Amino acid sequence: MEIKKFSDFCEQVLPDFNKFLDDRLKSEIKQTTLRDAMLYSLDAGGKRVRPMLFLAVAYSSGVRFEDLSKYFDIAGAIELVHTYSLIHDDLPEMDNSDYRRGKLSNHKQFGVGPAVLAGDGLLTQAFYWIAKSSLDTDKRMAAVRILSHNAGPMGMVAGQMTDITMEDKLLSEDELTTLHKQKTADLITAAVTTGAFCAGHELSTNLVQYANDIGLAFQLKDDLNDADDGEDADKNTFPNLIGKKATEEKLNNLVKDAFNAVLKEEEFDKNLLVSFLDYFKE
Amino acid sequence: MEIKKFSDFCEQVLPDFNKFLDDRLKSEIKQTTLRDAMLYSLDAGGKRVRPMLFLAVAYSSGVRFEDLSKYFDIAGAIELVHTYSLIHDDLPEMDNSDYRRGKLSNHKQFGVGPAVLAGDGLLTQAFYWIAKSSLDTDKRMAAVRILSHNAGPMGMVAGQMTDITMEDKLLSEDELTTLHKQKTADLITAAVTTGAFCAGHELSTNLVQYANDIGLAFQLKDDLNDADDGEDADKNTFPNLIGKKATEEKLNNLVKDAFNAVLKEEEFDKNLLVSFLDYFKE
Repeated sequence: MEIKKFSDFCEQVLPDFNKFLDDRLKSEIKQTTLRDAMLYSLDAGGKRVRPMLFLAVAYSSGVRFEDLSKYFDIAGAIELVHTYSLIHDDLPEMDNSDYRRGKLSNHKQFGVGPAVLAGDGLLTQAFYWIAKSSLDTDKRMAAVRILSHNAGPMGMVAGQMTDITMEDKLLSEDELTTLHKQKTADLITAAVTTGAFCAGHELSTNLVQYANDIGLAFQLKDDLNDADDGEDADKNTFPNLIGKKATEEKLNNLVKDAFNAVLKEEEFDKNLLVSFLDYFKE
Repeated sequence: MEIKKFSDFCEQVLPDFNKFLDDRLKSEIKQTTLRDAMLYSLDAGGKRVRPMLFLAVAYSSGVRFEDLSKYFDIAGAIELVHTYSLIHDDLPEMDNSDYRRGKLSNHKQFGVGPAVLAGDGLLTQAFYWIAKSSLDTDKRMAAVRILSHNAGPMGMVAGQMTDITMEDKLLSEDELTTLHKQKTADLITAAVTTGAFCAGHELSTNLVQYANDIGLAFQLKDDLNDADDGEDADKNTFPNLIGKKATEEKLNNLVKDAFNAVLKEEEFDKNLLVSFLDYFKE
């Protein structure tokens, strides 16, 4: 492996990947309002954590750097699904967010109807991109299966439903863990495990452990940041439920656990996956 | 072929197929609000035209009647996608329909947020059902590709976006044809062509012609029925644009055209596909 740091990996891959996302959607979507609304949120300046994780796992599994572009459509599909989930989450009857990453949220910019459709379009197009990938059919089919399982009503959509219907109810630690696992961790786990599958590996329990840990850690870090900013005071979050200090401890344990899981891994180069954990120490 | 009439085919297949849909969703979806909201619309008494067409094409292509249940998950996926589209179409900022098939629409029963998520869940689960089907990987992948292409932002979602954003603008006959093709015909075409692919055939231009014709005919018949009931007076429909009589003529021509396309078909038994056209004569 030539690239050992996750941040270096992103720096080298992101320009091409962002161009790919933009070019592809622009060439495919002819309905102009729909194209504008889909691109508005896709190009809203996200860090592309999930597709970068997918590509990093493929790279750590032995895919050559110069071959990574063959994996862009599946990485892109994961980002399309993530972007759709943000648009629908921001809707008035969901989290009711007027802003996302310093820009007006999709429904504030285009209206609720078009925002629902932009989300529907991104979600459906994700599966089209997977179907059109040049990877072997078995790998593509694994990507369809994992992504639809983890991002659908057995995963992310279930988590979001619990989130909006349990807003006024105090959740137990177990219930909150399930919510976070579904709403946040399942898509991150899908990115990691699909990366391994697409690079030709069987499912590794260590890698699943790593993915679940960082998925949950992701949510905790987010909630700790929001708590520092004085946000989410009335929401079901770990800082509100068990306090900031205990949440920080829980986060550290997850990162340690993820680190130990990667160390046990034999089929993958460990550098990038270990380096990714720095994200939680910032 | 033993069964020659489309209505007989539906009568013999529907009880098992409806049971399959219900059992499958109930066993898969654990989040109770989500499961209830998804099942509410899936079990709302639709005629299952699209999955029945899919199964009829498979049967007409030589799949034995007793083997049809192997095709239920892909037929079901098509119905999940259709059901999601109805839930999202009924939303207040889309068509704003309080009722669907005599029952409260999904968002009136469960709220807008849960209805958006029920739709998202049905759409995503459709691809999971395809991925888990026991058919060959190539057939499943063709189903993913066709369905995501025709139901997504290059098809149905684009049509719906045009519909809600052009509501106050008078469309030309060409624009209206494109809208109907995308919004209604593309999913029906997907059902027909996926049926042929899954039964092991290559794409037939006659079958595509047939599918496009009946897809558009479907919309015209619907609009003519609504016009008879005094509905849709201010909407972009053919009865409003060119009058009822010219619309009826257009409908008849489409049905004739579909009939002629089927007659040219050599690889399929013609009985069921021709019999389906009776629907437009009722």
